[in-house]
Amino acid sequence: MNYRVVFNVLGSLLCFLGPLMLIPLVVAMYYGESPYPFAVSFAVTTIVGSLLSFRFVSTGEDEWEKREGFAIVAFGWFAAALFGSIPYMFDGVTPLNALFESMSGFTTTGATIFVDIESHSRSLLFWRSMTQWIGGMGIIMLFIAILPKLGVAGRQMFRAEAPGPKEDQIKPRIRETAKILWAVYVSISVLELILLLAAGMSFYDASTHTFTTMACGGFSTYADSVAAFNSPLIEGIITLFMFIAGANFALHYKTLYSDKKSLIKDNEFKFYFVIVAIATILLTGILLRDTYDTIPTAFRYAVFQVLSILTTTGYATADFNLWSDSGKVILLAIMFIGGCAGSTAGGIKVVRVLILLKYARRELFKAIHPKAIRPVKFNGKSVPGDIMHAIISFVVIYLLIFLLSSTILTILGMDLTSSITASIATLGNIGPGFNLVGPMANFSTVPAIGKLVLIANMWVGRLEVFTVIVMLTPEFWKR
Amino acid sequence: MNYRVVFNVLGSLLCFLGPLMLIPLVVAMYYGESPYPFAVSFAVTTIVGSLLSFRFVSTGEDEWEKREGFAIVAFGWFAAALFGSIPYMFDGVTPLNALFESMSGFTTTGATIFVDIESHSRSLLFWRSMTQWIGGMGIIMLFIAILPKLGVAGRQMFRAEAPGPKEDQIKPRIRETAKILWAVYVSISVLELILLLAAGMSFYDASTHTFTTMACGGFSTYADSVAAFNSPLIEGIITLFMFIAGANFALHYKTLYSDKKSLIKDNEFKFYFVIVAIATILLTGILLRDTYDTIPTAFRYAVFQVLSILTTTGYATADFNLWSDSGKVILLAIMFIGGCAGSTAGGIKVVRVLILLKYARRELFKAIHPKAIRPVKFNGKSVPGDIMHAIISFVVIYLLIFLLSSTILTILGMDLTSSITASIATLGNIGPGFNLVGPMANFSTVPAIGKLVLIANMWVGRLEVFTVIVMLTPEFWKR
Ligand SMILES: [K+]
Ligand SMILES: [K+]
Repeated sequence: MNYRVVFNVLGSLLCFLGPLMLIPLVVAMYYGESPYPFAVSFAVTTIVGSLLSFRFVSTGEDEWEKREGFAIVAFGWFAAALFGSIPYMFDGVTPLNALFESMSGFTTTGATIFVDIESHSRSLLFWRSMTQWIGGMGIIMLFIAILPKLGVAGRQMFRAEAPGPKEDQIKPRIRETAKILWAVYVSISVLELILLLAAGMSFYDASTHTFTTMACGGFSTYADSVAAFNSPLIEGIITLFMFIAGANFALHYKTLYSDKKSLIKDNEFKFYFVIVAIATILLTGILLRDTYDTIPTAFRYAVFQVLSILTTTGYATADFNLWSDSGKVILLAIMFIGGCAGSTAGGIKVVRVLILLKYARRELFKAIHPKAIRPVKFNGKSVPGDIMHAIISFVVIYLLIFLLSSTILTILGMDLTSSITASIATLGNIGPGFNLVGPMANFSTVPAIGKLVLIANMWVGRLEVFTVIVMLTPEFWKR
Repeated sequence: MNYRVVFNVLGSLLCFLGPLMLIPLVVAMYYGESPYPFAVSFAVTTIVGSLLSFRFVSTGEDEWEKREGFAIVAFGWFAAALFGSIPYMFDGVTPLNALFESMSGFTTTGATIFVDIESHSRSLLFWRSMTQWIGGMGIIMLFIAILPKLGVAGRQMFRAEAPGPKEDQIKPRIRETAKILWAVYVSISVLELILLLAAGMSFYDASTHTFTTMACGGFSTYADSVAAFNSPLIEGIITLFMFIAGANFALHYKTLYSDKKSLIKDNEFKFYFVIVAIATILLTGILLRDTYDTIPTAFRYAVFQVLSILTTTGYATADFNLWSDSGKVILLAIMFIGGCAGSTAGGIKVVRVLILLKYARRELFKAIHPKAIRPVKFNGKSVPGDIMHAIISFVVIYLLIFLLSSTILTILGMDLTSSITASIATLGNIGPGFNLVGPMANFSTVPAIGKLVLIANMWVGRLEVFTVIVMLTPEFWKR
């Protein structure tokens, strides 16, 4: 392990994060709140980052190998969450809760330990939303530019005819790709911001909710989440942008700048759309039977909640914890799917679910025609064996972590439904679950050890599991 | 599809089943109950079986191909459940409930729609227990002798250095293997019967509970299940025999007649033991904290329930539905594992879980060393790719059916916990779940459509999924 490279990059990352804290500092001054917390956070983060960068100077000849890549990604996210938690502590949040909230931000999970959201300062809530937007950008880069290089996400599969030049070296490629994706992400965000402003939201509300929509984050500045606005128009805009944020950003780029049909030709996007359609129809029917009186009302709440959960955003326009179990099971099922690869969404991802289904279908065929050769196809190409293996082992390990986490939470005394949904809601970076951790409740009642488990879930889930889990193997630290 | 062969074998099967109904007829006469139901059932089953056999005479030259094999297994089990349900209808049970109870018997599930078990005639309860013992024998044969021939279970993997001669033709091999396994099954059953009698049970109780222990069936002649005896000795004997019945019968044969170390050398058996040990220790700790006062009491209920659920027997010595969620989650987790391949247990099976875990571990290793070659090993041999594929697609399809079933049940209005556990309890052939379908409750409150779904679950789960599911593919019926 080349520690110099790792610490050098971590230092650079903090030097990038620190100055971003000046934005909530400006917000604080605008609203007449104390700028002190963000000034201190800015100083601490930037100084530590600079010290790290200077202490571990990169010679410019260092090569990133796989292990260094894994360590940078995993500890990079952790460092961001750690230093990003400083402002919370100035607002009287305990260190554990601050780390929880900050990790929930940077991983775009949106699970909160805030009991009374509106009691916190506007600048802190702005920072909280902003961390999700930063995390969301990081995720897109991670998935499209970095992980394929580390062999995690399966480059060929996940549309890594990604935008940008195609050098062999990692660094220039990441830099170019990052620029392009940043531009796409910013452009779509600006579009949402304008639409939300036009729909009558204040600049503060519009910007914070743009941050958390585009990142599939789900933090709201209101305890009632998007229900606070009680506006079908705003819900419609947010629904649309959740749908966009849950799809592949590399495809958004291609759709905008080269092939207009990039999205609708893509197998993953088509399946994503089918899931949204089926879940919405089912849920509308169930809500019409059990909860609401008219089709438009049932549809309004159904489509919003389906997209919020499937894209792992986690907003709520209704307390779905009070819906019938029929409705809840639809939400629970799509919690295990998540959005598209290369989006800001979390979860197992649509492409993995789709390929796994095609794989199972192929095996059924082979049960009758054992000698027939019928490859699993995705976007017209055969899925290679190593990609198949990567997908399957991902799902297995994902479900094992889910089981382990659920078990620990119940052993700590939480009820089964809360334990299970808290686990999947953090591992899938969704945010709210059912019962104790429902959309109108919060994670403050989870025991301390449980919070640590959930922090780990968010971190592991956001980094596509392998990035963190490989560090648990002895092989990682060898030599 | 060669229908003649299929109907001919189904006919023979009914001709075998019919006369078995004379045994509960004798029981009826002994207890002074009406022998009429069993006389009629015997007559109907045997006559239909004979007509089928005569109408579709086998020329002796017919070859079983895969599709015929699948059809015989799937419809054979269904026919047994269908004709075996006749006696229930004489006792005032509705046809749907009778089919449910009979399918629950022949698939050794043990889920019951009986509201007041003791109100039914002793001969009917005897038949109910007996169907599980018949089903259990069928399962061992199916798994060790038939499925590997159909390419389902992965012969090389599942110890199909099975006893018996090794011809290439299916029929003689099945016949020889069947005889040997029958002898092992009967011998161990007799041993349990003797021990239960020695522990003070009546012949009626001892025989019915031997039937349902050895089959991992779980039907009891008492509403309180094994708790009715309130005897640590009886519980100990049953615990031991559940452990035996949940292990591979081909290995029991080898242990008895050739290599004494066959069981303890086997990777699957070792892992089975490890799961039992870990789950028992955890559950004992949890029960000690939440439910019982002393270690022996906690251990007594923990070890019994862990084995009852893991081996998918489904007996209860306590209403585990009243335990804390910490305890329930342990039971829920092992519901998804099940017993060993080649046993009478249902579920995903220990060997599949073990190989899947080894596979995930290997992929983690490969994430760091992508060029390293490290095969997944089982019992010292590399697991071939096609076996790996079969295992993975089994688990995927199994979980999909579980999800589909849970979703349907909740849509029908059942609560989430009942829906989920009713689904896994029938698909895994376990019997009781939690809440509405808890160990001291029954399945009578499930809506009619839900009962049909659960009947399908039992059938699909018992026949290793593929055997039934391939019939849903258009390829199955082609040509
Ligand atoms: K989220
Ligand atoms: K059972």
